[in-house]
Amino acid sequence: MKIGILGTGDVGKSLGAALVRRGHDVMLGTRDVRRKMEEKATEDAPQSFHEWLSKNKKIRLAPFAEAAAHGEIVMNAVAGHAALEVLAKVKPSDLKEKILIDVTNALGPWGEGPIELFVANNDSLAERIQRAHPNVRLVKALNTVTAHIMVNPAGLASGDHDVFVAGNDPEARERVARFLREEFGWKTVIDLGDLTAARGLEMMIMVWLKIWAALGTSDFNYKIVR
Amino acid sequence: MKIGILGTGDVGKSLGAALVRRGHDVMLGTRDVRRKMEEKATEDAPQSFHEWLSKNKKIRLAPFAEAAAHGEIVMNAVAGHAALEVLAKVKPSDLKEKILIDVTNALGPWGEGPIELFVANNDSLAERIQRAHPNVRLVKALNTVTAHIMVNPAGLASGDHDVFVAGNDPEARERVARFLREEFGWKTVIDLGDLTAARGLEMMIMVWLKIWAALGTSDFNYKIVR
Repeated sequence: MKIGILGTGDVGKSLGAALVRRGHDVMLGTRDVRRKMEEKATEDAPQSFHEWLSKNKKIRLAPFAEAAAHGEIVMNAVAGHAALEVLAKVKPSDLKEKILIDVTNALGPWGEGPIELFVANNDSLAERIQRAHPNVRLVKALNTVTAHIMVNPAGLASGDHDVFVAGNDPEARERVARFLREEFGWKTVIDLGDLTAARGLEMMIMVWLKIWAALGTSDFNYKIVR
Repeated sequence: MKIGILGTGDVGKSLGAALVRRGHDVMLGTRDVRRKMEEKATEDAPQSFHEWLSKNKKIRLAPFAEAAAHGEIVMNAVAGHAALEVLAKVKPSDLKEKILIDVTNALGPWGEGPIELFVANNDSLAERIQRAHPNVRLVKALNTVTAHIMVNPAGLASGDHDVFVAGNDPEARERVARFLREEFGWKTVIDLGDLTAARGLEMMIMVWLKIWAALGTSDFNYKIVR
């Protein structure tokens, strides 16, 4: 399947590498292809994007709009604060009727100001995106786990933990749930119903960050014990 | 131990009954004792408070201020939207240096308006209470589970799920964690640090309500799988 992934951070790269290994035709979207390819390694990111791409040769890098147009399914893995601006670059006809899996969290740029959501409680980033792109079939998913667990749940406690989907189109939720099970091996995908559930899913990042600090690792996930 | 519990809803009654069974001297606080004792059964609450109390004879009912004064530990189990007003009735000297276990969620009265928190994201009800009562040692706990699971975690999946504490006094957090383990049998109490973690803990109610709707039962809890 052709999959477009918006964003070249840890989440975009993890999703891309996993989906290429599964045989999919993956295009990663970025703001400025040339600038991305010239990015140097840093202390935080010891492997430059160019080096990473040379080890994941089947992945193509393209401008955001082209990656979105490429995908039969599009995954939104940009930083939350940039999501609306990035999606504004995509032609509505290139998103129409497509499933958009929205993995974002509503956090500002790292290290700037106190940690708080820029939308919460009675609205969500997912709903803002859906309102801006009424013809896309948006499904919120995967934003509650760290990047490498998204694509390899079995690597943590044999996969005995859960992930959620929320969106206004029931058939799209079911397709994304199946996608998560088949492509990444998620055992339990809990369907939380319409997109208002994205409020709760996005607000979970606030407790997630505290659990991360308490445990000293992001290698954890929620299991809904019943 | 003398324990004061503010609130006579499902949470206050569950906590009170469990702590009396453990041999504690429990006083439940309410707004108007006489009115509470005269309350009739309803369709939603087929057992009147008076009937419930006659089956839990060792529990005393008193005005909020008296119940708070009674407790060596005080538990705040009133409806979130009433919490600040109720605690304003308590003399600061009757809370001073005491541990206040805050079980509230920042929801408005049931059925009135859309479901949203009246404080969230960059503040929390727990922090508001702590600011209003700077001399109390407030510990947020138990607000992430339904009443009967709070006091009987073993009744769900043999207790293999988690609860959290947050508060500005590390020794108070440790005492509350021990209290939860010893009195109710919680196996894992995760210490999330200072009271800013109450923001995330209180925001979890929004996803909790959606999980409740999806599963059709409130008999569930989070386990942090690591």
